[in-house]
Amino acid sequence: MAGMDKLVALVNSFASAVLSVGREVGLNITLNKAKVSQGVKVENICTAALIGVVGVGSRGTVNIMLNKDAFENIIKTMSGGMIAPQLGDDVSMSVIGELSNMIGGRALVQSSLGTVDVTPPQLIVGENIKNVTKEDTGMKSFTLPFSLDPSGGVFLVLSFKID
Amino acid sequence: MAGMDKLVALVNSFASAVLSVGREVGLNITLNKAKVSQGVKVENICTAALIGVVGVGSRGTVNIMLNKDAFENIIKTMSGGMIAPQLGDDVSMSVIGELSNMIGGRALVQSSLGTVDVTPPQLIVGENIKNVTKEDTGMKSFTLPFSLDPSGGVFLVLSFKID
Repeated sequence: MAGMDKLVALVNSFASAVLSVGREVGLNITLNKAKVSQGVKVENICTAALIGVVGVGSRGTVNIMLNKDAFENIIKTMSGGMIAPQLGDDVSMSVIGELSNMIGGRALVQSSLGTVDVTPPQLIVGENIKNVTKEDTGMKSFTLPFSLDPSGGVFLVLSFKID
Repeated sequence: MAGMDKLVALVNSFASAVLSVGREVGLNITLNKAKVSQGVKVENICTAALIGVVGVGSRGTVNIMLNKDAFENIIKTMSGGMIAPQLGDDVSMSVIGELSNMIGGRALVQSSLGTVDVTPPQLIVGENIKNVTKEDTGMKSFTLPFSLDPSGGVFLVLSFKID
């Protein structure tokens, strides 16, 4: 598979994994196709789950980034309202970790990239988190924005270097 | 190599890479050996560079985290005072990216872990950034705090799962 095709396959695998896993856990999630863009376009992020991806000919990071509404919506939905969402709290973060794990696993199973390997998700919390990538070093970034109903923004940011 | 030995080798490789690369670029950096600890112990982080590491039998993330003083000190030192440090700014972030790249590369060359593969550093900026790891899922985390003279705190956080 050529370099750019690989990247497209990765983007598609992860996007479809976010949608299918999200819906299975009960989230009302949709991809804002019109707002898919190159580069990093995220706003008001309080939680990020980073998954390192290493495969033959490609390496990079997949970021699942949540704003506050999405963070709260996801924890309430996945725990059936049993867990009060709290940023940085062990129980709350376990829920986000579990969701990221499921998305990473699903993306690999769905993708046709056989030899790709991933790291466990690394969870980051903070205020106004943003990832910065330098397009000039051969890194390519894409942002896929998802909306949660009734509220919440989930951003899937992929940053990859194709050898 | 047994699982725990591998983790120790990774920790040592990255710690020594931070010190040797740091000194080569002109930083006055020391490891606070007495404060090396298990778990994640970081404070006031504004920038994090995450490197995914995948190898036979181990996978995880290496985090190079900087507080504001360290961020400014590093950019001033590495640019010879030519760059005014600004969080999130492309030029400033390039400097941090370059330093992280050098540390990742050095750690791999120095380590005896032959088959380990890494992702390019993913740079994250924000306020009060903290990574969260769950020790109960087989993830092991270590924090190694470094001091910069005259000021600045650099934290090396390794989170690994040993298969």
